[in-house]
Amino acid sequence: MAAKKLNIIVFSGEMDKALAAFNIAVGGASMGMDVTMFFTFWGLNVIKKNEGSIRSKGVMRKMLNFMNRGGSKRLPLSKFHMFGLGKWMMGKLMKDVNFPSVEELIKLSESMGVKLVSCNTTLAMMGITQEAFIPEVKDCVGVATFLSLADEGSVNLFI
Amino acid sequence: MAAKKLNIIVFSGEMDKALAAFNIAVGGASMGMDVTMFFTFWGLNVIKKNEGSIRSKGVMRKMLNFMNRGGSKRLPLSKFHMFGLGKWMMGKLMKDVNFPSVEELIKLSESMGVKLVSCNTTLAMMGITQEAFIPEVKDCVGVATFLSLADEGSVNLFI
Amino acid sequence: MAAKKLNIIVFSGEMDKALAAFNIAVGGASMGMDVTMFFTFWGLNVIKKNEGSIRSKGVMRKMLNFMNRGGSKRLPLSKFHMFGLGKWMMGKLMKDVNFPSVEELIKLSESMGVKLVSCNTTLAMMGITQEAFIPEVKDCVGVATFLSLADEGSVNLFI
Repeated sequence: MAAKKLNIIVFSGEMDKALAAFNIAVGGASMGMDVTMFFTFWGLNVIKKNEGSIRSKGVMRKMLNFMNRGGSKRLPLSKFHMFGLGKWMMGKLMKDVNFPSVEELIKLSESMGVKLVSCNTTLAMMGITQEAFIPEVKDCVGVATFLSLADEGSVNLFI
Repeated sequence: MAAKKLNIIVFSGEMDKALAAFNIAVGGASMGMDVTMFFTFWGLNVIKKNEGSIRSKGVMRKMLNFMNRGGSKRLPLSKFHMFGLGKWMMGKLMKDVNFPSVEELIKLSESMGVKLVSCNTTLAMMGITQEAFIPEVKDCVGVATFLSLADEGSVNLFI
Repeated sequence: MAAKKLNIIVFSGEMDKALAAFNIAVGGASMGMDVTMFFTFWGLNVIKKNEGSIRSKGVMRKMLNFMNRGGSKRLPLSKFHMFGLGKWMMGKLMKDVNFPSVEELIKLSESMGVKLVSCNTTLAMMGITQEAFIPEVKDCVGVATFLSLADEGSVNLFI
């Protein structure tokens, strides 16, 4: 019997939603599921490199990518962000109970075989290329690839 | 073998989430899936007519439907809306790469056989009727109809 | 044939999303589905007791649980909350069409056999225990339990 599939569309670029997504992904991988995470729209921020600046062409795209810098260490909270204070507190609370950070979850999920892919449509819209992303992101695919994975017996989530 | 089903609950009324929903819907339809989009709560804004005013009874419902006017051209961004500036920029960026607008995606999805339906529960709560919606929305159904479509082998998303 | 399963991850702590989640859950239960709702992160607010204060250890967790008090009667709207005015209006509109409140939906769903469970990971992070929750929440489980329910032929939603 083929392994079950878990497909997660990560649309949101917030730290709390990224934590939830990776937590489910890692859980699925540890149960032997084939896990794919599709990062799209604001979710692309989760997989952007933390270092350097993001290259893009044109004034508006440069502006967008400046405001929307992203990177796993820069993700805001969806609630109680409070200019970083809430996020700092949440980081402390997580460390306290040995809960991994988004960076650590990315590494953990890769080591467990979770596939991280970016969405080619939003990439074009935002004027960035695969080089904006961390090396754990191996591929750039379209919605058809996602839907052909979203097969019988699989779990599909939009986060 | 029956065609696979793709069912999308559109709860959110933001432009970026609507783009994602329609993008997935159109992708599914082009792969031969039976696609249904259920618009509920704030998602009803996506399918409201852009012209005229929305009729409703009672002062509070009139207020709600004034504030919550909706229409595919009026949807805000969930991030960087910036009183319309961010939205205007996003529109420019989309045109630049020939990415269709929400209006165009609605027409495209209808022409590809995507079924657009509204949720009868929220309709009653907000005091509006089917006439508030664009003609592409053919039906008004309840949660039971959604769940009976959400069958084996189908992909179900809550956006 | 085994009953179909409906699994809902409730990540959000807003009234409108809680209404949607319970509405779908109750609909599924009335159609004979096995329904489980997993409350995680901000979604834990939905199932917190309305009375008393939430006990937690450490200054930061006390602060978090003070700001993030929760309880079905305190949930904000995700849009138009307007310091409670929008929420009050929504409550009026719901009563007007005999739409049940979140409190009533919790009772209704329990009486129809919907299982309400909390997520053990976020519980630890937020430093609260099961005693923070209403008695309708019978269990505290991990992501593996969710994924093993998210089986073939089931409907899984992330709200």
